[in-house]
Amino acid sequence: MSPAVQSRTSKTSVLKTIRELSWETRQVAAPGPGEVRVQVRRIGVCGSDVHYYTHGRIGNFIVESPLVLGHEVSGTVEMIGEGVTRLKVGDRVALEPGVPCRKCEYCKTGHYNLCPWMHFMATPPVDGALAEWVIWPEDFTFKIPDSMSLDAAALIEPLAVGVWAARRGGVKMGDSVAVIGAGPIGCTTLQAAKAAGATTLIAVDLEDFRLDIARQLGATHTINARNENPVERIRQITSELSGLPLSHGGVDVACETAGSVPTCRMSLEAPRPGGVTVLVGLPPVAEVALDIVSAASRETDIRGIFRYANCYPAAIGLVASGTIDLDALITQRFAFDDTPDAFTFADTERARSMKVMIEVGEDA
Amino acid sequence: MSPAVQSRTSKTSVLKTIRELSWETRQVAAPGPGEVRVQVRRIGVCGSDVHYYTHGRIGNFIVESPLVLGHEVSGTVEMIGEGVTRLKVGDRVALEPGVPCRKCEYCKTGHYNLCPWMHFMATPPVDGALAEWVIWPEDFTFKIPDSMSLDAAALIEPLAVGVWAARRGGVKMGDSVAVIGAGPIGCTTLQAAKAAGATTLIAVDLEDFRLDIARQLGATHTINARNENPVERIRQITSELSGLPLSHGGVDVACETAGSVPTCRMSLEAPRPGGVTVLVGLPPVAEVALDIVSAASRETDIRGIFRYANCYPAAIGLVASGTIDLDALITQRFAFDDTPDAFTFADTERARSMKVMIEVGEDA
Amino acid sequence: MSPAVQSRTSKTSVLKTIRELSWETRQVAAPGPGEVRVQVRRIGVCGSDVHYYTHGRIGNFIVESPLVLGHEVSGTVEMIGEGVTRLKVGDRVALEPGVPCRKCEYCKTGHYNLCPWMHFMATPPVDGALAEWVIWPEDFTFKIPDSMSLDAAALIEPLAVGVWAARRGGVKMGDSVAVIGAGPIGCTTLQAAKAAGATTLIAVDLEDFRLDIARQLGATHTINARNENPVERIRQITSELSGLPLSHGGVDVACETAGSVPTCRMSLEAPRPGGVTVLVGLPPVAEVALDIVSAASRETDIRGIFRYANCYPAAIGLVASGTIDLDALITQRFAFDDTPDAFTFADTERARSMKVMIEVGEDA
Amino acid sequence: MSPAVQSRTSKTSVLKTIRELSWETRQVAAPGPGEVRVQVRRIGVCGSDVHYYTHGRIGNFIVESPLVLGHEVSGTVEMIGEGVTRLKVGDRVALEPGVPCRKCEYCKTGHYNLCPWMHFMATPPVDGALAEWVIWPEDFTFKIPDSMSLDAAALIEPLAVGVWAARRGGVKMGDSVAVIGAGPIGCTTLQAAKAAGATTLIAVDLEDFRLDIARQLGATHTINARNENPVERIRQITSELSGLPLSHGGVDVACETAGSVPTCRMSLEAPRPGGVTVLVGLPPVAEVALDIVSAASRETDIRGIFRYANCYPAAIGLVASGTIDLDALITQRFAFDDTPDAFTFADTERARSMKVMIEVGEDA
Repeated sequence: MSPAVQSRTSKTSVLKTIRELSWETRQVAAPGPGEVRVQVRRIGVCGSDVHYYTHGRIGNFIVESPLVLGHEVSGTVEMIGEGVTRLKVGDRVALEPGVPCRKCEYCKTGHYNLCPWMHFMATPPVDGALAEWVIWPEDFTFKIPDSMSLDAAALIEPLAVGVWAARRGGVKMGDSVAVIGAGPIGCTTLQAAKAAGATTLIAVDLEDFRLDIARQLGATHTINARNENPVERIRQITSELSGLPLSHGGVDVACETAGSVPTCRMSLEAPRPGGVTVLVGLPPVAEVALDIVSAASRETDIRGIFRYANCYPAAIGLVASGTIDLDALITQRFAFDDTPDAFTFADTERARSMKVMIEVGEDA
Repeated sequence: MSPAVQSRTSKTSVLKTIRELSWETRQVAAPGPGEVRVQVRRIGVCGSDVHYYTHGRIGNFIVESPLVLGHEVSGTVEMIGEGVTRLKVGDRVALEPGVPCRKCEYCKTGHYNLCPWMHFMATPPVDGALAEWVIWPEDFTFKIPDSMSLDAAALIEPLAVGVWAARRGGVKMGDSVAVIGAGPIGCTTLQAAKAAGATTLIAVDLEDFRLDIARQLGATHTINARNENPVERIRQITSELSGLPLSHGGVDVACETAGSVPTCRMSLEAPRPGGVTVLVGLPPVAEVALDIVSAASRETDIRGIFRYANCYPAAIGLVASGTIDLDALITQRFAFDDTPDAFTFADTERARSMKVMIEVGEDA
Repeated sequence: MSPAVQSRTSKTSVLKTIRELSWETRQVAAPGPGEVRVQVRRIGVCGSDVHYYTHGRIGNFIVESPLVLGHEVSGTVEMIGEGVTRLKVGDRVALEPGVPCRKCEYCKTGHYNLCPWMHFMATPPVDGALAEWVIWPEDFTFKIPDSMSLDAAALIEPLAVGVWAARRGGVKMGDSVAVIGAGPIGCTTLQAAKAAGATTLIAVDLEDFRLDIARQLGATHTINARNENPVERIRQITSELSGLPLSHGGVDVACETAGSVPTCRMSLEAPRPGGVTVLVGLPPVAEVALDIVSAASRETDIRGIFRYANCYPAAIGLVASGTIDLDALITQRFAFDDTPDAFTFADTERARSMKVMIEVGEDA
Repeated sequence: MSPAVQSRTSKTSVLKTIRELSWETRQVAAPGPGEVRVQVRRIGVCGSDVHYYTHGRIGNFIVESPLVLGHEVSGTVEMIGEGVTRLKVGDRVALEPGVPCRKCEYCKTGHYNLCPWMHFMATPPVDGALAEWVIWPEDFTFKIPDSMSLDAAALIEPLAVGVWAARRGGVKMGDSVAVIGAGPIGCTTLQAAKAAGATTLIAVDLEDFRLDIARQLGATHTINARNENPVERIRQITSELSGLPLSHGGVDVACETAGSVPTCRMSLEAPRPGGVTVLVGLPPVAEVALDIVSAASRETDIRGIFRYANCYPAAIGLVASGTIDLDALITQRFAFDDTPDAFTFADTERARSMKVMIEVGEDA
C-alpha cells in the first residue's frame, strides 16, 4: 500500500487562543508498531477542556501553542500497526488518554498516573482527540462489548476518575459515602462507590437538577447545601445508622468533586473518625485554610487523586454488566461541525447541563 | 418486679443423641448488665446443624452432652439489662451467634473470629437458639430496619459468611469471581461478590436447580460440572475477557463452598496467576493431595475462612438497601413444633432444598 | 485477708491548678476481676503532661478538677485480681495507659484508639499514674523481659506513638523517611521507621543537640532548619537516590512531630508524588493554610494519628531484641519526691532536655 | 565509531547437554536505544543453575538448545545506548535478570513478575550472563553505591527473592518469623524479615553449618530438625511470648525455602491462626498431601512467590545501609575459567557450601 493511501486527512478542531476554536486539516500517518489508528466517534466535553477554552491554562499547564482539546474518546479501529494482536480492524474502542513512559519506578509499581513522563491528551503540549482520526498505542485502547454504546465508551474516561476515587477512598461493602458535588465526576464517583458496595450514598450540591440525577443513579440521600448544613446532616444520618454518638458521626468516605474552597473544607469534616476524605476536585487557589488538627486527631485520612491508573478494564466491566449507567449523564449532543457551539454551551449553561457529547461520526 | 416475673419459661429443642431432638422446658433469667433478652422468631437450618444432628460431631467439636442447635437467629427484644443503650424493647434484631473474650490479641486487633475463648452458638458445649427465648449481649445483637423481614434477619448469618469470603478474597470492582458450589453459602458468597463489584460471576454446581437460583441472584455464567470441565471453561471465559493467553486465564477470585475433595482441588486451578482461592467449605478428610507447586508458582493465594468478624453491619446494610436478596434463598418453611421434621427434610431432600426456615413465633 | 490489709496507701502527686502540684495520700483498693495492682516504678514526663501543668488544658480537654498526671508508666505487679492468668505477682510491666470500651465498632475492628468511650490516663477527668500504686486491667498491662530496664518500659508509651506513626505511614523496607522534629516523639518515630526497614532517614530540627541524638539513633541525614531549606534538601537527597527528576523528589514518608505551623506546611511538601505525610504533632491553632491542591494532585496522602492501637507488643519486642534503644533518650532523672522540680525543668530547659524520667521506687 | 569497534568478542560458558559446559566465543553488539552494555564481573551460582546443569530442566522449562546459565549478575557499564540517562559509562551495576513486556495488565499493575511474556536470564530459551559482556535494558540495570562490593551486587538477586518473600508474607515490626531451610534463599529471607522488623526469627534446617550462619545473620532461635520437632518447638516458643494457649501458638509468618515435601507440610502448621505461610521453595513433585482443612480453618494464608517485582531498589538500599550483609553468604570463589569446577562443586559439596561466586573480571 502506498503511503498516500495509508495516510489519512483529518479534520481537526484546534484551540488557537482563548475562546477561539478553528478548523485545521491535518495528516494522520499509518499506525507504527504496537499502535492502532482509530476513527473518532464520540468526544465528551470535560470541565478541563472548557477551562482551557476559557482561561488558556489550568494551574501550571499553559496553552502556549495551538492545542487540540478532547480526551473523553471512543471510536472504531480502522488500521492496526505491526505486532498488534489484541485489537482488529472494526473493533469499537474506548481510548485511555494518558500514556506513560512504562519504565520508571511509578510505571513499574502500578502507579503510572504519577509517571514524570506522562503523555496525556489535551494537556499542553499534547494534543487531544477532537479530530476525525487519531493514532494510539494498542495497550491504552480498549475494546468494548457490542452491548455498550459509543457514548458510554467515551464516558469511560470520567468513570475511570470515579473508579479511582472509590478505590483510593477504599470504599467497601456496607460503607457510607458522601459525594460533595453532583456534576459529571460526582455522578461517576457516586456510581463507582455504589458498585464497590456502599449502601448509604449521600449526594451534596447546590442545584436540585443535579441532585435529581444523583438520586436516579443511586443516591440514598441528597442534600442541597443552600437549604441545609451538609456536615450536620451527614453526621446525623450516619450517627443514627451506627448508633454511635454524634461526635463519631460521619461517613466512611467523603469525596470532594466540586473543587471549591467551602466544599474542600466541608469534605474534611464529613467523615467519621477513622474515615477518609478523597479530594477529586481541586479549588483554584494557592492555599486553603483547613482545620487539619481536627482531621488529624480524628485520623481522617486525606487522599488526593491525580487522574487514575488501571481503571479502564473495571470501568468497562461495570458498564457492560449494567451496574453503572453512563448514558444517563448525557444532557446535550452536538455534531462535530458544531464543536464551537458545544463549548459555548458547556461554558454558559452549566445549571442545566450534566455532560455535553460531541458526535464525530455515525454509529457503525 | 419479682424474679418469678422476670424469668421466662422457654420451650427448647435439644439434641440428645444422633437424630434425636427432644423438647425441654428451660428457664431463661432476666438479662444481666449489657445483655438483652430476645424472643426468638426465626431460625435458619444450617448444614452444620444438620451435621451435628446426623453425625454428632464436626471435626474436633463433639456433642458430648445435650445440645441446643440453631445459630441463624432473628427475633424481637423483650427485655434489656442494665447499661443497654443501643437497643430498646420491641426492636427487631439479628443475633451474631459468636461472642469472643474481647481482651486477647485477636479481639483487640479486629480478628475476634479467631479468639481462643470464642463462645459460639450451637457449637459444643455452647447451646444454640432453637428455643423461645435467648439472652444475648447487646453488642452482638443488631437492630434491623422495618423494611427487612425476620426471615432475612436470620439469614444475615450465612450472608456474613459470604461477606467475609468476599472480603478475605479481596473481591473488588470489575473482578471475575467463580463460586464453586451453589448451595446457601455459595449463593450468599455470590451475592456478596457481586455487591463488592464483581462483574463476571461464574457459579459451578452439579445441580441445575441450584444453578438456576444462582443465575437469578446474579451469576453471569453457570457451569454444571457434570457436563463441562469447570476449570477449562473458567479459563476460556476469562481469557476471552482479558485478552491474555489461556495460561493466564482464570478468575480473580475463586470461592470453594462445596466442601468436597474435587472442588477443593478445582478451586486452586480456577484463579489466574496472581489470583486468590478462598476456601469456605471444608472437605471432611484429613488431607487433600494438591498441586501446590503450580498454585505457588502462579502466586495464587489460598485463604481459608473461619466464620467471620465485623460482617453483620455490612450484611444488614446490603440487604436493607436491596443490593442483596436473602428471602429468595428460602425454599421450605416449618413451624417450631415441627423442628424434627425440618431436620429430617434438610438431611434427606438436599436436591430440592436451598434453605429451610423454622418459624418460632409470629411476626409482630 | 481483711480489706484493710488489701488496700494500700498511695502517695500521689496532684495537679490542683496551673503550675501547682500537691501531694495527697489516697487509698488504692485491691484489684477487681481481671485487674492487677501495680507498684509504680518509673514515670516519663511527656510534653502533654507539661502542657496540662502550664496551661491547664489541651484543646477541648480541660482540667476542671484536681488531676493526677503521668501516663508513661512502668512498675511491678503486686497483687492480681480474680481471673488474671497472664500476669503474676512480681512481674515487671509496662502499662498501656488507655482502656477502651471493648464493645463498640472501633473496638471490634481493631481501632480502639478511636473508641468514643476511651478511658486514658492523665486526660481530664481520668487520673494518671504519678502515685505509688495503680490498679489496671490485665489486658493493658504487659510483662517485659528481664533484659529490659524499667526506664525503657516506661518509654514504651512514646515508642508506641512512633510505631503507630510508622505503621500509619506504611513505612517499609528500603523507604526514605523524613522526621520533622527530633524531640522524644521524633526520635521514637525515627527508630520505628528504621525498624520497619527505612534505609534513608532524614531528621529535621532547629537544635543541633537533638539532631546529634537523632544521628546516634540512626538518622542517615540531619537538617538544621535554621541553616538549610529542609524541603529543598530532602528533594535533592531523594532525587539523587531515585534518579527521578527533582519534581518527583521527596521522601516516601514524612512524619511531622514538632507540632508547629511551619513544620506542618513543610510536611506536606516533603513527600514524593504518591508518598505519605503523617501528622503526629499538632499545631496549637484552629486552622492552617495549606497548599492542599499540590498535595492532592501529587497524591500525597495525609494521615493523622491519635495515640495508637495494638502497638505495645511490637514496641516491647523491638526494645527487647535490641533493635530500638530507649534508654538513650533519657537526659535527666528526678526522684518521686522531686516531681515538681521535674516539671519545672521539663518546662523551662527544653533546649538541653530530651526525656525527663521520674523514679518512683527502687529497682527490684 | 565503526561497527567493528562497537561490537565486542565475548567468551561465553554454554550448557550444551547435561553436565557439559563448553566455551564459545560470541559477538556482542553495541547497545540499542534504552540499553547498556555491561562488562560482567561477578556471577553467583544459583540452585536453579545447578539444576539445569544436572537435570536439563526445571518443571516445564526444558533446555532444548545450548543455554548460557547465570542470572545473579554484577558488572560495570561499558557503553550506553541512545536515550540512556540514568546510567553512565563506568557505573558499577547489579542486573535484574527478568525483563517483562511492559504492556500487559500484569506489567501495568506492578506485578510484572507474572507477565506472560517475561524474558528471564538462564531460563530456556533465554540466555543468562556467564559471559564477558551482556546487553541489558537501562531500567533493569541498577547502579550500586561505591561502598557496595560487586559480590554483594550479584547477590542482590537472591536477596530480591528474600525481600519479595518478606513482602508477600506481610512481615512487619514485632513479628515472629520462621524460615524453614537455611540455604542461600533461606538466609536472604531471614535477613529481609529482620529488616522488615521481625523480632523473633526462627531458622530450621538439617545442617548445623547452615544454622550457624543463620544465627550469625540474625536468627534468634535455630532448630535442627534432626533433633527436634520444629512445629512443636515453634508453637512452644511463640506461645510463651504471646501468652496465648498452645493451640494458638505459631509464628506470624513461616517461609518455606527448602523445597521438600516434609518442609512444605511443616510450613502449613508453623503459623499461628491468622498467620501466613510463604512458599518460596517448591517440592519437585506433582502433588503434596496437605492438611488444608486445618490451615483453612485457622485462616492461615498460603502464598507462593514467583521470582519478585520491584525489589531491586529496596534490596540495594538495605545492603548499602548496612542492614543486610550479603558478603557473609559467600563460602567459595572460582575464577571464570574454572566455571565448570564451580558447577561441579556446587552440585556435590552442598553440605559445606552456602553460595559459590564466579569472578568474571577484576574489580575496577
